[in-house]
Amino acid sequence: MLGRLIIDDVRPRTPGGYPAKALVGGVVTVKADIFREGHDLLAARARWRPTGGTWATEPMALDVNDRWEAELTPTQVGRHELQVEAWTDHFATWRHDVELKAGADPHDSLATEIEEGALLIGRLAKRAPKEARPVLLAAVAGLRDGARSRDERLNAGLDDHIAALLTGVVDDTDLTRSDKLTLWVDRELAGFAAWYELFPRSEGGLAGAAKRLRAVAAMGFDVVYLPPVHPIGTTHRKGRDNTLVADADDVGSPWAIGAAEGGHTALHPDLGDIDAFDGFVDEAATNGLEVALDYALQCSPDHPWVRQHPEWFHHRPDGTIKYAENPPKKYQDIYPINFWPERDADRKALWQACKEILDHWISHGVRIFRVDNPHTKPFAFWEWLLPAVQAEHPETVFLAEAFTRPKLMAKLAEVGFTQSYTYFTWRNEKWELEQYLGELCAEPLVDYMRPSFWPNTPDILAGPLRNGPPSAFRLRFLLAATMTPVYGIYSGYELSENQPASPTNEEYLHSEKYELRERDWDDPGSLAPFITSVNDARRRHPAFAQLRTLRFHEATDDAIITWSKTDPATGDVVLCVVNLDPIGWHEATLALDMPVLGLGWDDTYDVIDELTGSTYTWTGSHPYVRLDPARQPGHVFAIRARS
Amino acid sequence: MLGRLIIDDVRPRTPGGYPAKALVGGVVTVKADIFREGHDLLAARARWRPTGGTWATEPMALDVNDRWEAELTPTQVGRHELQVEAWTDHFATWRHDVELKAGADPHDSLATEIEEGALLIGRLAKRAPKEARPVLLAAVAGLRDGARSRDERLNAGLDDHIAALLTGVVDDTDLTRSDKLTLWVDRELAGFAAWYELFPRSEGGLAGAAKRLRAVAAMGFDVVYLPPVHPIGTTHRKGRDNTLVADADDVGSPWAIGAAEGGHTALHPDLGDIDAFDGFVDEAATNGLEVALDYALQCSPDHPWVRQHPEWFHHRPDGTIKYAENPPKKYQDIYPINFWPERDADRKALWQACKEILDHWISHGVRIFRVDNPHTKPFAFWEWLLPAVQAEHPETVFLAEAFTRPKLMAKLAEVGFTQSYTYFTWRNEKWELEQYLGELCAEPLVDYMRPSFWPNTPDILAGPLRNGPPSAFRLRFLLAATMTPVYGIYSGYELSENQPASPTNEEYLHSEKYELRERDWDDPGSLAPFITSVNDARRRHPAFAQLRTLRFHEATDDAIITWSKTDPATGDVVLCVVNLDPIGWHEATLALDMPVLGLGWDDTYDVIDELTGSTYTWTGSHPYVRLDPARQPGHVFAIRARS
Repeated sequence: MLGRLIIDDVRPRTPGGYPAKALVGGVVTVKADIFREGHDLLAARARWRPTGGTWATEPMALDVNDRWEAELTPTQVGRHELQVEAWTDHFATWRHDVELKAGADPHDSLATEIEEGALLIGRLAKRAPKEARPVLLAAVAGLRDGARSRDERLNAGLDDHIAALLTGVVDDTDLTRSDKLTLWVDRELAGFAAWYELFPRSEGGLAGAAKRLRAVAAMGFDVVYLPPVHPIGTTHRKGRDNTLVADADDVGSPWAIGAAEGGHTALHPDLGDIDAFDGFVDEAATNGLEVALDYALQCSPDHPWVRQHPEWFHHRPDGTIKYAENPPKKYQDIYPINFWPERDADRKALWQACKEILDHWISHGVRIFRVDNPHTKPFAFWEWLLPAVQAEHPETVFLAEAFTRPKLMAKLAEVGFTQSYTYFTWRNEKWELEQYLGELCAEPLVDYMRPSFWPNTPDILAGPLRNGPPSAFRLRFLLAATMTPVYGIYSGYELSENQPASPTNEEYLHSEKYELRERDWDDPGSLAPFITSVNDARRRHPAFAQLRTLRFHEATDDAIITWSKTDPATGDVVLCVVNLDPIGWHEATLALDMPVLGLGWDDTYDVIDELTGSTYTWTGSHPYVRLDPARQPGHVFAIRARS
Repeated sequence: MLGRLIIDDVRPRTPGGYPAKALVGGVVTVKADIFREGHDLLAARARWRPTGGTWATEPMALDVNDRWEAELTPTQVGRHELQVEAWTDHFATWRHDVELKAGADPHDSLATEIEEGALLIGRLAKRAPKEARPVLLAAVAGLRDGARSRDERLNAGLDDHIAALLTGVVDDTDLTRSDKLTLWVDRELAGFAAWYELFPRSEGGLAGAAKRLRAVAAMGFDVVYLPPVHPIGTTHRKGRDNTLVADADDVGSPWAIGAAEGGHTALHPDLGDIDAFDGFVDEAATNGLEVALDYALQCSPDHPWVRQHPEWFHHRPDGTIKYAENPPKKYQDIYPINFWPERDADRKALWQACKEILDHWISHGVRIFRVDNPHTKPFAFWEWLLPAVQAEHPETVFLAEAFTRPKLMAKLAEVGFTQSYTYFTWRNEKWELEQYLGELCAEPLVDYMRPSFWPNTPDILAGPLRNGPPSAFRLRFLLAATMTPVYGIYSGYELSENQPASPTNEEYLHSEKYELRERDWDDPGSLAPFITSVNDARRRHPAFAQLRTLRFHEATDDAIITWSKTDPATGDVVLCVVNLDPIGWHEATLALDMPVLGLGWDDTYDVIDELTGSTYTWTGSHPYVRLDPARQPGHVFAIRARS
């Protein structure tokens, strides 16, 4: 049976009832449709707590169209409960009605209404804080004071002070509660971070890679992500450029995990021992970086699990183990795992073993995992694994590397992935970017999916980067770093590495997945200074940590894309204007939605380019911009209103 | 724990899990997001049954973006259950993969794949219909026939005939079911009907009103709706034109229900006795009409309940019963009911008594109720009452007369109202109509709320009808009757009664709510012929019974509104082009979305005006129209493609 009030469409929530996502220190707007029959006024509040903790409450206010809102700011990581409570505000209703009646007829004694008010305030006084009671009881006496005039008696109850004392006093005669929602609160890095991916073997192993960390940190990155660091199989090992037969000195793909030396909890001997690994993690921390590891649940034919647990793999009628296929392509160097063995005990042991891989690396200080191809493993597995790990280590972050259909990507985010790779790499035109960001910023998706934009990965060299000039690399970097709070690049990007494997293949020529790669980090053409300036601007402006406040503004040229972001906590606003053509200059007149920028339509204001330091003074909503990619791909403006 | 497959966002459904609505003989499109990890092909079906009945199944087909659909056509009224089932189509996956492999490498024996196919077909044969098994087992033998070539063996399994036999065979190894959804199936009249409201007392009571029924039926109406037929209170009775003091001969408002003669189950003596009522219902049926009664849960101070059950009313501190108020307005002739008496036994008795009113009139052949102000009664009451009545009489129809905020109106529909009054009366401009219809046609609202458009009611004379010419009445009638499957008018409309109570009041001058009204039904200016022609067109075209297929098309003039509707079962299409200006002629070039009309972009086709019989031959998507309101408010076109 329905409650006395209706509380519908409470948010944030996910379609399937999994926890919505929030950040420590980030504003969570709780919303609900709240109404009841008739015309009485209502009151509502949100209550919330860390699971098992103490409830806190926040009053909700009516926005429009029976939609109520409250803003919460979580202060600790982990699972939270959230509930909306609403009740009829009998006092506000009485006050509203009696004021109208008194104004409409000065001769009506309103004796009954006055006594109704006295009874009501007397009843609510019992539910009010103790210190408020004397004043409330005095109001009751004033209402009933026959020696006073009608309006004097009324004023004893209508006084603003009485209303203030009764605000938020819960009237339990028709108190109605929504279902409980859950919220997963992550630490700040889970929602605002710049990632940098590198192959330690190209740097001479973990010890050598540790020497790169200072430079990576200096560019402004927060996370250094390593492809799998485990022993690599030799059976059917792939050669350079993904050839089927490897030479004796070919290093193989790190994703062909497992060899005689061990599996997912072992280190490749060439990278160093566990002390080298711990040293790498420590050196990262010293530089203000966190280490992210790859979590790729697949095995080379040489992985110890293949011998120890053949029941964890798929078998063919001839008894052999099935290798990976995407017909007609064959991946004989990889055995996919069978997550649904016939015996449920085998399934449980397998899933537990998968968790123990994470436990192992967590015990070595890793709290971030980039998960390889999660969409080829059961959703039920992730639904179990991710909360199980986060129950013990709530600060753990999982990035889903799923480039698949939109509903699968959303579902992975819903069942618990902290961040998600996206289609950004294939969104280059203005309309494509506007449409895609529109999807990512819309409820309910924005309540549980955190997109991470990657201009490149070791697998993907796409769009204008293919044989593209450094200006294309600046452009795509600027978009990724300023559109989404979380983004990343794969090393070599700053050197504008641009050679594709073929005109149609999106892989790199001489892909680092199959061979070591030497680079000249001191190349004078390096984009490191540009990257540093963008990351610095990101850190200066909390608006860059926001996604749901992103709004596009119009521009008269289809190559000029314009958007703003606002941080609701600080009011910080940034305005980005980017030329999507990496070759030619473009000019446009913008049509800025001034209220979105916190400005009036005819205001005069300064815009300060956070990348160059240049300041322009604009008036009104239609400024002119001209962007030459040879100089800079776009403006990242802070806005300073002129008083 | 999640199932092996994901089945999300199953529709039709309501946000709160109440039954979605369907009609006997109407197409229900069942939709679901269905996917699983990896790349295997899937199969799915919808299964459904009347509650307690036998399951029927319908195969689902993949539409786009992991959205699957099936079409059902319910055949009986009442509550139904609906569920989506999905499983991995291992055979289709095998077939797809092995065809690619065979094509890619003619020298690969594919021995393992062939044996996999034999095992798979052998396993599925056990689940297939008995008559299919011999052919399937022959295919298994063919696959294993070492005397044949590779491709001969393969073809034994790849033959289309095998695929056809295995289509729909449920593979229970990973069969996954969605939650059960509920569907309420109404009879056709609940979803497609024209209503006509009349005050029988103005026709000399029920016997006199019965003589009007032939004319009402001749105009093409399906339902004749009577305001309350009960005794009317005398205490604080309202006089003519809603004056506070009634003269001795004033008849009072039928909504001030109850007097010494009885309450909601009694008839007003002036209308006739129960035999006259039964006779009216019979005469309606003879004319192909159904009778709708008003269900107004409020009492005059003279209602028997006031003495018998004072606990069913609100009391003031001085012991008196509260009359209705909308401060500062007072309605002393009406006592609202207190649906939440202190004692729950009183609440149950009250709610039961409310149901018994309906039971009484149902026992006299009434199956349609227009419910007065349902938004001032608890949602929990309707949530209980409507299904309780429909459980016993599933053909019962409830129209919600709620002109309130959108979320309350939607919630009333969700908890069980069959049809809903709307804001149509206040939507006159093209953009207003397009926006409002857009809301009404959108999921999920269209799955459970059936809008009923009323150009006028006894309470509402609005927009261009106020002091408006007959052309305004034709215009608003045409919109109501062709935009929504259910609509109604209040009698006098056909006589273009247009005098408002005042320049600001939306009531009629000399409102029939407070006095009898004489009319000359034979007025030569009557719109009855026009109304008849529109209702005839509605009956000829099943597309008019559709709402969710309504699509607007563009026109170059803001006064010309253009839309089409399609009936998915028959393919019937109607195209309406209406001039929203009741005074001046307008012309426009249309921009028709030709595929929506079942036409190619450059087709030549006839459009036949169903109101005038005129036929025009058009070519392409940009025809020209000119509409003079002195002649007709708009075209209602049938479309005939030229071969």
